[in-house]
Amino acid sequence: MAEITELSKLGEFGLIERLNPKQNPVNPSTILGNGDDCAAMSYGNKSVLVSTDCLVEGIHFDMAYTPLKHLGYKAAVVNFSDIFACNGKPTQLLVTLAVSSKYSVQALDELYSGLHLACEKYGVDLVGGDTASSNAGMFLSLTVLGECNKDTIVQRKGAKEHDLLCVSGDLGAAYAGLLVLQREKVTFLANPQSQPDLSDYQYVVERQLKPEARMDIIQWFSDNSVLPTSMIDISDGLASEVLHICKHSNVGCEIYLDKLPVDYETIKTLEEFDIVPDTGALNGGEDYELLFTINQNDYEKVRNNKNITVIGHITDISLGKKLVTPQNTTIDIKAQGWNHYKDHHP
Amino acid sequence: MAEITELSKLGEFGLIERLNPKQNPVNPSTILGNGDDCAAMSYGNKSVLVSTDCLVEGIHFDMAYTPLKHLGYKAAVVNFSDIFACNGKPTQLLVTLAVSSKYSVQALDELYSGLHLACEKYGVDLVGGDTASSNAGMFLSLTVLGECNKDTIVQRKGAKEHDLLCVSGDLGAAYAGLLVLQREKVTFLANPQSQPDLSDYQYVVERQLKPEARMDIIQWFSDNSVLPTSMIDISDGLASEVLHICKHSNVGCEIYLDKLPVDYETIKTLEEFDIVPDTGALNGGEDYELLFTINQNDYEKVRNNKNITVIGHITDISLGKKLVTPQNTTIDIKAQGWNHYKDHHP
Repeated sequence: MAEITELSKLGEFGLIERLNPKQNPVNPSTILGNGDDCAAMSYGNKSVLVSTDCLVEGIHFDMAYTPLKHLGYKAAVVNFSDIFACNGKPTQLLVTLAVSSKYSVQALDELYSGLHLACEKYGVDLVGGDTASSNAGMFLSLTVLGECNKDTIVQRKGAKEHDLLCVSGDLGAAYAGLLVLQREKVTFLANPQSQPDLSDYQYVVERQLKPEARMDIIQWFSDNSVLPTSMIDISDGLASEVLHICKHSNVGCEIYLDKLPVDYETIKTLEEFDIVPDTGALNGGEDYELLFTINQNDYEKVRNNKNITVIGHITDISLGKKLVTPQNTTIDIKAQGWNHYKDHHP
Repeated sequence: MAEITELSKLGEFGLIERLNPKQNPVNPSTILGNGDDCAAMSYGNKSVLVSTDCLVEGIHFDMAYTPLKHLGYKAAVVNFSDIFACNGKPTQLLVTLAVSSKYSVQALDELYSGLHLACEKYGVDLVGGDTASSNAGMFLSLTVLGECNKDTIVQRKGAKEHDLLCVSGDLGAAYAGLLVLQREKVTFLANPQSQPDLSDYQYVVERQLKPEARMDIIQWFSDNSVLPTSMIDISDGLASEVLHICKHSNVGCEIYLDKLPVDYETIKTLEEFDIVPDTGALNGGEDYELLFTINQNDYEKVRNNKNITVIGHITDISLGKKLVTPQNTTIDIKAQGWNHYKDHHP
C-alpha cells in the first residue's frame, strides 16, 4: 500500500522543498529559482523580480479584529517587503481574490482601498488579477513584480565570514500587537458590550495591523553605496530568517542577545503576557524588517543610521549558529517559526 | 445607512472593473494594465507578460472527478494560454497553494507532478510560490510570466473593420466533457459500485480534464510572419470572448454559425444532453483555443492551416455584434459566461 504522510509531518518549509525541488532552468531569462524571497528574471541590464504570497481567512487573519482596509494594505506591503529583501523596487501588483457571498461589494471596496493606498504610497501599479467565489471565507493571493539593476540584486546567499549581521527597525512588536488583539477578542466574545481601550498598545497594534516595508532602507543603501552581501525580510521571526541566510550562504553566525532592538512598548506588552522580550524578538514574526549582512568596511556608514542595528556577525560554518547571552554563554539558534499545518497562525 | 450590494449583483466582470479601475501607471516599465489576458512590462526590446488565475475546490473543480495530476496540469496550461493569447511565450511559473489537512503529502505530490509535467512540455521554469493551510478545501493560485518582442505583443484591442475573425481547433468539447463527468458523478453517488464507461467520450473528457494551450499556433504565426491584429483565449466561451475583442477594439462583428468548428464527438455528446451544438460551441467555455483577428492580406496563409478556421469578420461598431444563421438571419451575440457568484461553475 502506498505510504500516506500527513502534511503536519513536513511543515511549511519541508513541503515547499519537496514540491519545488531545485532544477536547472530551461529559459535563459530565469536567473534565480525558488529558495529566495523572490524569483528573478534577467532582461538586458535589469533583473525583474517576482514574489507571491497568499493569505487565508482564519489562518493568516481573523476577521474579528482585522479591518478589511488594513488587511488589503498589509497584504500588499508584505509582498513589497519581499522585493525590498532582494534590494529591488516593487513596480507592479496582481491581486487574486476568492470570496464567499457573505462579503458585500462594499466590503471588497474597503479591501481594495487598502490595496490601492499601499500601491500609491510605494509607487506600485495594480495591473490585474483574478476574482472568483469560494465556498468558505476569503482567500487572497498577491503577486508583486519589481526590478533592480542586475549587479545590485541581493540574495540569501552571499554572507561571508566576518560580515556584520544587521537588522532594521525593532523586533517583536507585531507579535505583541497580535497578543493584545487576541486578548481583546476573547474579552469581546465574553462581553460584547465591552469597549477595548488600546491606547497603551498603539505602536504594537499598528505594527500588527498596518506594517510598513523598509523602502527607506533600500533607498539608503543606494544613496550611500552600501551593497549588502545577503538579505532577507523578517516574516517568520529573526531566528528562522537568520538560519535561512546561514544555510544559503553556508556560514555560521553569532547574535548578541543584548543587541536586539526591541521597543519599550513591546517589552512592556510582552512582559504582561509573561513572555521574555528576547524570545518575542527572536520568534515573534511579522516584523517585516530587513535582516542583512554587510562587509566590515561599511560599518562606519551603518553605525550612523539610527534605523539600523548591528546585532552580530557571520562566522565559519563549523562554529554553528549561536546566540550569545549577556553572561557570555552561547545557545544554539532554533527556528520557532509557525508550522501552519500544526498551529493556527492567526 | 451605507448601501450594501450583494456580489451576485455585479458578476465577475463587473467586480473586476469596479475593483481595478483604469489608472495611469506610475512606473515606466508598466505598458499594459488590467483588461487584457496579461499585464505587460517593458524591458529593453522585450515585453514581460504576467497573468494570474485562481482555482477553488468546489467552484472551479470537483474532487469527485478531477484527478490531482490532471488538476495541476490543467491549472498550469490554463495560465500558459493567457500568455499565448498575447502572442508571447510562457517562461516562469509561481504556484501558491492553500490546502486543508485532509490532503496528504502524496496527494500534493500528484498535484505537483501535473504542474511539473506541464512546465516540462511547455518549456516553463517553476520558480517559486507559497504554501499555506486552509480551513476548507483547496485554493490554487498560479502566476505565469512570459515574454515576447515588444513589437509583436498582441492585445484585445487592435481589430479593424474587414479583419477576419479566426479560431483555432474546435469548440464546445470541454463543456461536453464536463456534462459527461457530472452525469457520472450522479450515477456514482447513486450506486458506488458502478464502473463508468467513458470510451465513447474520450475526446470530450480529455478536453475537460487535460486541455492543451495553443503553443503550436503562436509558433505558426512566427514561422509564417502572421501578426494577429487582436487576440484572446477562449476560457469563458466564444460569445463572451468575441465581445471582449469588440469592446476593446471598438468594433462590431459578424460570426457565421455554420462556420463554427465543432468535433463530431462533441456534437453527439451535446445532443445526448439536448443541447444545440452551436450553443455549446458559443457558450461552453474552457476551450482554451485562441480567438484572433487577421488582416485580409493574411487569408491565403491562414486558409492552408487546418488548425485555424475563419468564422466571420469585423464590422463597424454601428453594425453591432451579430451571429448569422445558415438562413441568413442575424441574432445579437450575448455573453452567457458563468457568473461565479450566482452559478456554481464546477
